Amino acid sequence: MDVAILGAGSWGTAMAIHLDSMNHNVCMWTRDQNQVEEIKKTGYNRRYLDAKLPKSIDITTDIYYAIKDKKIIVLAVPSHAVRCTVEMMKGIVDKSAIIVNLAKGLETSSLKRMSQVIKEIVDNPVVVLSGPSHAEEVCRHIPTACVISSNDINACEYVQDVMMDENFRLYINKDLIGVELGGSLKNIIALGAGISDGLGFGDNTKAALMTRGLAEITRLGVALGSDPLTFLGLTGMGDLIVTCTSMYSRNRRAGIKIGQGKSLDEALREIGMVVEGVNTTKSAYELSKIHGIEMPITNEIYSILFEGKNPREAVYSLMTRNKKHEMEGI
Amino acid sequence: MDVAILGAGSWGTAMAIHLDSMNHNVCMWTRDQNQVEEIKKTGYNRRYLDAKLPKSIDITTDIYYAIKDKKIIVLAVPSHAVRCTVEMMKGIVDKSAIIVNLAKGLETSSLKRMSQVIKEIVDNPVVVLSGPSHAEEVCRHIPTACVISSNDINACEYVQDVMMDENFRLYINKDLIGVELGGSLKNIIALGAGISDGLGFGDNTKAALMTRGLAEITRLGVALGSDPLTFLGLTGMGDLIVTCTSMYSRNRRAGIKIGQGKSLDEALREIGMVVEGVNTTKSAYELSKIHGIEMPITNEIYSILFEGKNPREAVYSLMTRNKKHEMEGI
Repeated sequence: MDVAILGAGSWGTAMAIHLDSMNHNVCMWTRDQNQVEEIKKTGYNRRYLDAKLPKSIDITTDIYYAIKDKKIIVLAVPSHAVRCTVEMMKGIVDKSAIIVNLAKGLETSSLKRMSQVIKEIVDNPVVVLSGPSHAEEVCRHIPTACVISSNDINACEYVQDVMMDENFRLYINKDLIGVELGGSLKNIIALGAGISDGLGFGDNTKAALMTRGLAEITRLGVALGSDPLTFLGLTGMGDLIVTCTSMYSRNRRAGIKIGQGKSLDEALREIGMVVEGVNTTKSAYELSKIHGIEMPITNEIYSILFEGKNPREAVYSLMTRNKKHEMEGI
Repeated sequence: MDVAILGAGSWGTAMAIHLDSMNHNVCMWTRDQNQVEEIKKTGYNRRYLDAKLPKSIDITTDIYYAIKDKKIIVLAVPSHAVRCTVEMMKGIVDKSAIIVNLAKGLETSSLKRMSQVIKEIVDNPVVVLSGPSHAEEVCRHIPTACVISSNDINACEYVQDVMMDENFRLYINKDLIGVELGGSLKNIIALGAGISDGLGFGDNTKAALMTRGLAEITRLGVALGSDPLTFLGLTGMGDLIVTCTSMYSRNRRAGIKIGQGKSLDEALREIGMVVEGVNTTKSAYELSKIHGIEMPITNEIYSILFEGKNPREAVYSLMTRNKKHEMEGI
């Protein structure tokens, strides 16, 4: 099977290595000519992932060459680049090609999910992939389980057959909205978990924050049409755990820096890669106001990121909310 | 307020330090005279917790002295010692005293929850406390949130008033069965998470195991009369996260040793404290058979612990189960 991967960040690179190991013909695309040359010369994509790319993986800056006649096109660009990347695909992409989206986020201007953005531009089947899947582990073939979802169940099953092996399991979940929102919104809580760690709080504190964080992103998800059970699954709780506890998580690492007293700009500069949770916090904050959903953790993180609130004060105001029963408001 | 704490392990000791910091008069009881002397002499309870005990905490081996006329008695013994400890209390304990149980487990012989065991012996109000609360953090006053539950709501609210402060939050959850089962059953999954870590698998693998583990202990909990939402809260997901990701967790550490190739006996000897998940795995395995609940992770852990199954084979058989949709069987 010929597969195109658009985007050569860590996740795109890991996916290329995984699909190449399944004997697919993989062509990666990036806008960055220097990156193409570095990978061709050294076999490594050092800035993003410490893993050797097999020589059988092709790489180009020519999007026409990358996607022409491909039946599967994996979108592995940051969420803010999804719209312009799909615009570039328009007119080139085969009508029946399946677009597999890996980007986790909401469009900041429209508050739309990525599959909605893609469908505005092209009419191809869209499958989204989400779940606990650090690129650093997938590229080493460490056992990983994710979910895929689509409004086109045939496309979903086709992608499952093409992309799944014994180390990379893909489960179908029909709740497209929930799968996309779970993967996106969990990054807000990961920022909060990092802030708690950066402040020197403990595992107890973080577990409380994650538990109540999952409850509030589930509330927003349900208001937007998701099945609450999806948030209990791999794209919700599973991805939340990985993102909040692993040092591979950029969202958590950015949070740690902020908890240690750095500004948002400093933290982002030091990470040097896209931290999806920052824009997602803004989008979720707006959505919670529109839909009247109580999201105390998201509100505090918004205040820390965009209004200069002291992180320690924010954690204390969360811990000392006047709430006596666990299930109040759920 | 005069409070007795029965059991001087890590959790009992941390609770003593917490309640002492709230200006309660705390008396700890242990059967071990050497431990009493060590604590009196050094101010430390070294074998269990690296924390200084204030001089204001009393400690004794005389259970009559410890609990006589006390209105709150905290049970902080291992679950297998709950029955005999409450038997000792019978006839001494004040009729109106509230028993706060911290032990997390099921009675191996009867498969009963701890509150059921206590109620068979004495008629006092029983409040159970559960949630993500490593003793090592509670004793340092790191922000922590737990749940309490009881069939006696007045007793619950009284305990909340007595034991909660700004660093140790207690939320009431009325689902007693769910609160007790969440705290107990999560230890099975923590053993599994440790085994995965001990085998050298990654954060992705562990997150998948935890997600599907929570789903299966929720299924058993619902069959036994719990509200499934309780498993999403602090006693379920929250406690699961802490127990599966922290090095403070004995269950996880025991699992790591088993994943690294040690026998159950060797692992338990090296931990040197009670590992509740081992007996709980046996109890849950039996309960799943009685109630016809599918618990694939518990089954594999049972096979590893008690039937000598190779842990690597067990993880692979979990990862390669023939399951195509995420929500099958939920």
